[in-house]
Amino acid sequence: MSTVDPKKQREALMMRAKVAPIVQLFGMTLEYNEKDEAVWTLPFDENLTNGITVHGGAIATMIDNAGWFTIAQYFENWIATVEFSTRLLDFSENDELIATGHLVKLGKRISTATMEVVTKTDGRIIAIGSGTYATTSVPLFGNAG
Amino acid sequence: MSTVDPKKQREALMMRAKVAPIVQLFGMTLEYNEKDEAVWTLPFDENLTNGITVHGGAIATMIDNAGWFTIAQYFENWIATVEFSTRLLDFSENDELIATGHLVKLGKRISTATMEVVTKTDGRIIAIGSGTYATTSVPLFGNAG
Amino acid sequence: MSTVDPKKQREALMMRAKVAPIVQLFGMTLEYNEKDEAVWTLPFDENLTNGITVHGGAIATMIDNAGWFTIAQYFENWIATVEFSTRLLDFSENDELIATGHLVKLGKRISTATMEVVTKTDGRIIAIGSGTYATTSVPLFGNAG
Amino acid sequence: MSTVDPKKQREALMMRAKVAPIVQLFGMTLEYNEKDEAVWTLPFDENLTNGITVHGGAIATMIDNAGWFTIAQYFENWIATVEFSTRLLDFSENDELIATGHLVKLGKRISTATMEVVTKTDGRIIAIGSGTYATTSVPLFGNAG
Repeated sequence: MSTVDPKKQREALMMRAKVAPIVQLFGMTLEYNEKDEAVWTLPFDENLTNGITVHGGAIATMIDNAGWFTIAQYFENWIATVEFSTRLLDFSENDELIATGHLVKLGKRISTATMEVVTKTDGRIIAIGSGTYATTSVPLFGNAG
Repeated sequence: MSTVDPKKQREALMMRAKVAPIVQLFGMTLEYNEKDEAVWTLPFDENLTNGITVHGGAIATMIDNAGWFTIAQYFENWIATVEFSTRLLDFSENDELIATGHLVKLGKRISTATMEVVTKTDGRIIAIGSGTYATTSVPLFGNAG
Repeated sequence: MSTVDPKKQREALMMRAKVAPIVQLFGMTLEYNEKDEAVWTLPFDENLTNGITVHGGAIATMIDNAGWFTIAQYFENWIATVEFSTRLLDFSENDELIATGHLVKLGKRISTATMEVVTKTDGRIIAIGSGTYATTSVPLFGNAG
Repeated sequence: MSTVDPKKQREALMMRAKVAPIVQLFGMTLEYNEKDEAVWTLPFDENLTNGITVHGGAIATMIDNAGWFTIAQYFENWIATVEFSTRLLDFSENDELIATGHLVKLGKRISTATMEVVTKTDGRIIAIGSGTYATTSVPLFGNAG
C-alpha cells in the first residue's frame, strides 16, 4: 500500500510531535508501544481543566492524536483527520492520562482507528473514541525533508 | 422540565466560563446569541496549532463547549458530556473561529445538540459536530452558590 | 469537481432506488426536494418494529440512504458510506417517516452530509444523523449504463 | 447497580428477540457467548442488499442490536438506544454475518458498548460501531411479565 518504512516514519513523527506547538502547550509526549501503536501521555495540568475535571476537549485532543499518529506511520503523505468521536466515560481529576490508538483498517485512501484514554496509575478508563483518517497528496514532511 | 431561569443561568454560566482554566488558556470567549445559543470565539493562537493548522483537538474543545453551554442553561444541575463527534471539513490556518451550539432536543435526562465552527471573517465552515449531554445530581454551582 | 449532470443523475438514482431489494423490502420511496436533497418516505410497517417502536436499524437505514442519495447525484462513480451516526431522539410507533439529507461539504474524495428523520403527519423529529461518503473508482451504473 | 439476574434476563431476552418482527424479517438469531456478550447471526439474504452488497442499514441494525442486547441483560427496565455509530470497513456480498457487542461501561443511567460485525466464514471485519444506551422507567417485559 505504501513504500514507507513505518519504523523510520515513527522516528520522524516522534521528532515532529515534539515541536508541535499544541503538544508543547499541553505537555504531551509520544511513544510507540510494542504493537506500533501511538501512545500519548498527558501529565495533569490544572490549565487543561474546567476547574473541576480535565476538559473533554483536552481528552479529545489526545484521542485525535492517538489515532492520527497510529495511522500516519504507514503513509508518505500527510493524513487528514476526517472525523472522530469522543466518548467520555469517567471523570479525570488530577490524573496523568495515557491515550493509545488501535489500527482497525488501513486503506489506500481511508483508514480507521479506535482510541482509548486511561489513567496512568490505575488504568481506569476515561474515554474511548474512533476516527476516520484520509490520505492526501501533501508530503508529510514537506519542509523538513 | 425545570424551574431554572435560563436567562439567569446564562449570566452565571458566562461568569463561570470566564474563570475556567482551559478557557483562559485558549483565550476563548462566550456569548449567547439572540436564539439563546452558546457562541464561542477563539482568536488565532499559534500555540493551538500543530505547526500548520489549528489542531482538531482545539476545534473539538470549541465544539464540546458550544453544545455544553447551549444545553446547560436549562438545568439547575451539572450536565455531563456523554459523547460528541467532531467532523473536520476544512483547514483553518490563521483564522479567528466561531463555534455555535444548536439545541436539537431537551430531555429530562438526556439532551442533544449539534454544533458548527466557522471562520469569523468569511463564515467558511471548518467543522461540525453533535453531542449527547446528560443531567446529573451534582449542583452546577456547588461552591459558588 | 465532476462533469456529472446532477439532474440526470437524480433521475437515474431514483430509477435505481426503485429496484434495490432492501428498498422494496422496506417499502421506502425516494424523491428529491426543491433543494435537490434526497427525501425518503417510509410508510409504517409492523415488520420493521421490535414489537413496540420502529427499530433503530430501520431508522438508520433511512438515515444512510438520505445522506447517500444526497451526495451520489454529484458523482459519476459509486460512493461508499464510510461511516454514519444515528441519534434516536423520540419513539416512532405507527408513523409514516420522512428522512431528508442535507449536503454539508462536497469534496473530490470525501463528502459530508447531515440527515434528519421526522414523522410525516406532525413533523416530530425522530432522529438525526451525519455521515462521511467517499468517492470510489467503481462506475455507479456499471451494468445498467 | 441492579438486582437483575443477568442469566435469567438473557434467557428472557433471547425469547423476546425471537418474536420481534424485524428480527424475523431479517432472519437474525441471538445467542450470548461465554463472555455474556450478545452475538447476532444474519444469514445472507438478497432482500437486505442494495443489489450489490448488504445494505449499511442492515449492518447498522445488527450493530444496534449487538450493543442493546449486551447492555439490556443488566437492567430490569427497558433501555433506550440514545445513539450509535456505524463504520463500514469492507463490503459484504453474500456472507453470513456475525455481530458481537462489547460492554465498555455500565452506568446506573447511561451505558456504553462497542460492536463489531465480521463474516462468519473467514472473520473478515465488515463494520464496527459504538453506542450509548440509557435506562428508562419502562419495565422491560411489561406485558409478558
